[in-house]
Amino acid sequence: MTAVVREGLRQEVLEANLAIPQVGLATLTWGNVSGVDREAGVFVIKPSGVPYEALTIDDLVTVRLSDGAVVEGDLRPSTDTETHRCLYLAFPSVGGVTHTHSTRAVAFAQARRDIPVLGTTHADTFNGPVPVTRDLTEEECAKDYEYNTGHVIVDLLDGDDQRAVEVPAALVAGHGPFTWGATARKSLEHAIICEAVADIALHTMSLSPTTPPPRHLLERHYTRKHGPDAYYGNPTTPATR
Amino acid sequence: MTAVVREGLRQEVLEANLAIPQVGLATLTWGNVSGVDREAGVFVIKPSGVPYEALTIDDLVTVRLSDGAVVEGDLRPSTDTETHRCLYLAFPSVGGVTHTHSTRAVAFAQARRDIPVLGTTHADTFNGPVPVTRDLTEEECAKDYEYNTGHVIVDLLDGDDQRAVEVPAALVAGHGPFTWGATARKSLEHAIICEAVADIALHTMSLSPTTPPPRHLLERHYTRKHGPDAYYGNPTTPATR
Amino acid sequence: MTAVVREGLRQEVLEANLAIPQVGLATLTWGNVSGVDREAGVFVIKPSGVPYEALTIDDLVTVRLSDGAVVEGDLRPSTDTETHRCLYLAFPSVGGVTHTHSTRAVAFAQARRDIPVLGTTHADTFNGPVPVTRDLTEEECAKDYEYNTGHVIVDLLDGDDQRAVEVPAALVAGHGPFTWGATARKSLEHAIICEAVADIALHTMSLSPTTPPPRHLLERHYTRKHGPDAYYGNPTTPATR
Amino acid sequence: MTAVVREGLRQEVLEANLAIPQVGLATLTWGNVSGVDREAGVFVIKPSGVPYEALTIDDLVTVRLSDGAVVEGDLRPSTDTETHRCLYLAFPSVGGVTHTHSTRAVAFAQARRDIPVLGTTHADTFNGPVPVTRDLTEEECAKDYEYNTGHVIVDLLDGDDQRAVEVPAALVAGHGPFTWGATARKSLEHAIICEAVADIALHTMSLSPTTPPPRHLLERHYTRKHGPDAYYGNPTTPATR
Repeated sequence: MTAVVREGLRQEVLEANLAIPQVGLATLTWGNVSGVDREAGVFVIKPSGVPYEALTIDDLVTVRLSDGAVVEGDLRPSTDTETHRCLYLAFPSVGGVTHTHSTRAVAFAQARRDIPVLGTTHADTFNGPVPVTRDLTEEECAKDYEYNTGHVIVDLLDGDDQRAVEVPAALVAGHGPFTWGATARKSLEHAIICEAVADIALHTMSLSPTTPPPRHLLERHYTRKHGPDAYYGNPTTPATR
Repeated sequence: MTAVVREGLRQEVLEANLAIPQVGLATLTWGNVSGVDREAGVFVIKPSGVPYEALTIDDLVTVRLSDGAVVEGDLRPSTDTETHRCLYLAFPSVGGVTHTHSTRAVAFAQARRDIPVLGTTHADTFNGPVPVTRDLTEEECAKDYEYNTGHVIVDLLDGDDQRAVEVPAALVAGHGPFTWGATARKSLEHAIICEAVADIALHTMSLSPTTPPPRHLLERHYTRKHGPDAYYGNPTTPATR
Repeated sequence: MTAVVREGLRQEVLEANLAIPQVGLATLTWGNVSGVDREAGVFVIKPSGVPYEALTIDDLVTVRLSDGAVVEGDLRPSTDTETHRCLYLAFPSVGGVTHTHSTRAVAFAQARRDIPVLGTTHADTFNGPVPVTRDLTEEECAKDYEYNTGHVIVDLLDGDDQRAVEVPAALVAGHGPFTWGATARKSLEHAIICEAVADIALHTMSLSPTTPPPRHLLERHYTRKHGPDAYYGNPTTPATR
Repeated sequence: MTAVVREGLRQEVLEANLAIPQVGLATLTWGNVSGVDREAGVFVIKPSGVPYEALTIDDLVTVRLSDGAVVEGDLRPSTDTETHRCLYLAFPSVGGVTHTHSTRAVAFAQARRDIPVLGTTHADTFNGPVPVTRDLTEEECAKDYEYNTGHVIVDLLDGDDQRAVEVPAALVAGHGPFTWGATARKSLEHAIICEAVADIALHTMSLSPTTPPPRHLLERHYTRKHGPDAYYGNPTTPATR
């Protein structure tokens, strides 16, 4: 039965979901991670409303990319499933998606402000501000609300996959952060970093009307970890400073 | 002896009380949760001043709804018992009550400001601001102080049970949050969420003179989790995103 | 050898010291608790600079009240020992003293502002603001510095034991909080509460130019836990909400 | 093989690195500690991008002081290795270096503000503000970036070893804190203290336009822990209050 997705994906999605409370990004059952198998045309996601401490690999739900139908699993998938699906369809490079209500990133989303680039901690991962979407319209809320939540992110990035690679995170206005990456685990890492840079930005902004650091410093940090000239990390270790 | 209340209630009240320090809402022995058995006409509550690490099921105190008399238990009940009783008497839908001194919610109570609705994290649970009561009068403090602490909450909601269902939390001015729900466990969840949204609101307000998100977004989030069209959660899981 | 102090005192002082990092009030080896045996004319205190994880009951140092001489123990006592001694000599009601560098209380000490009474969380324990001392003079720093650190607290309270009972905490300007109580354990509890109310006050003050709650509310909270009409707690439990 | 460095150094460097997440200064794999063996002309440092939970003593990398060549270890050393090397070459008193992205210190670095001396918690360790460097130039970013990151610190202190002893920490503008000390362990302690004083300073500054405490108080605290008249600590314990 579970052969429907490539080996290891369900385990990776389970572990990434279980990491959400461990890294302090969760309140109650909030938050969810998914991972995609593009060959099989499906993604695996957390079920809706299951407490993390009770979550097992058998609770995960497999959803078809093309139409959102549940193809495996006894539980209802996360209510945010359609948002994940929209992001997978729009951005071919995305292998995993994470959504949390982590508090500092949500504060920026609620204030409808981008998380600005204020230092190398940000530039190490995000090659630009973490942008905030426009508000959803009344029509977008009334019908296909969750899919449209993904749609305003796609809109924000002009559907440009390269932009999704360079800044793998966005804040949905009045809601909170969605992050993504090449794998479920990477999307979770970006959620952790998004919250960290939001937290640091809040404190930086309380200290001064901030001037961003020089662009050459930021570029140096981004390119030493990403692209052809990257020299961060070791072959057998995840590329995360 | 313990047959006076329905099976499982004492255990649920114990677990909800023990969860207060686990979820980081307690300082020392502060905080208390109760659960009601309306058929038996009693509620079960934490004893006064017992440290959480020493609390056992036998320490819980059973109190009569009609007059506040202790009907079971060797210890004195929480000093806040009469506040709980007042809320049970006023709002028939309430099955459990939680009181904490969680720091961000207390900050709003001390500033005598409602926790405003600034995003979907709030709207998922509270269908409106978490309101703050008026100050108690000198007379209300002098006599039946704890009962009157409940009374100002009842006043604030015009004694309307439906309002108590839609926003299951209030801040007593200069004091702190009281939350409630269909069960003791739900009242605790609302205390956790009340603190989380207070924390996020504080940071949002530091970022911008806040404009609330459009009403249609907030309504969508409330109704996807509450009422006839709710589609959040799974049959066997608690309905908490 | 250890018979010099009353039974249980060394154990109580050890446990109160070990609790400092457990309750999150310590950085590295910072902080110290002592307890006095007035009959024996000595007090027991943490040695200087010993990491909490290595601290054992044999490391504790016994110091004579009258002149500060070490009467038992192989290690040098805390550098703050003379401050503790000064407080014991000035205030007969004090049975234990705690000093920490807990961050929010230190922030008030550094800003040279009292922690104001903004709600019942404060009034439950402190019957008035937690006051900040004047700066020490150059002479007071040059000679008997640590004793003089206690002296500015005594000065602040006009040496009035009753004031020390009603507000068992003070902030030394530019330095940090000292708290005390009937026992070592109570002095530690007051340190925990001092930090909690400082934290809540910081957030309250960020929300509004604060008006204190009505005096009758604050008095009610203080008197329900202290004095002849107190009705908080249970005979066998510590009197701390 | 490991005989290349003095006994105990590798273990000390391992433990100091593993302590970074334990004391709450790390996000993901961020942060690194090194320790030097000046006789052998090498230093030992964390490898690049290895998660703390997977880090073993065999992963540590030994680097030659004179030219930065790896002389032992299978993994690539931390990308920040050249910054450590620059500091070792410039300041003969430095025995260990720590770099973290701890959030409050990074906020000051991003705001390009010194962490001011606002109280004795700061003065106990740092005999002056923790200074922030100038921005790196475009040329300094383009070539030998990491070495130049050390260079702007050396510049800031005019290459004066005594200044490096008195304030064993600096903030690289737009980046974050580097701290050092006589040993790897001491450099880590200074990182912990740097973050603590940054946190306290942020809260102090939110309370008042701060006036520093009198110089005689600050000097007293520094000299009671440092220099010929120090009287803090015990012979067998680390000298850290």
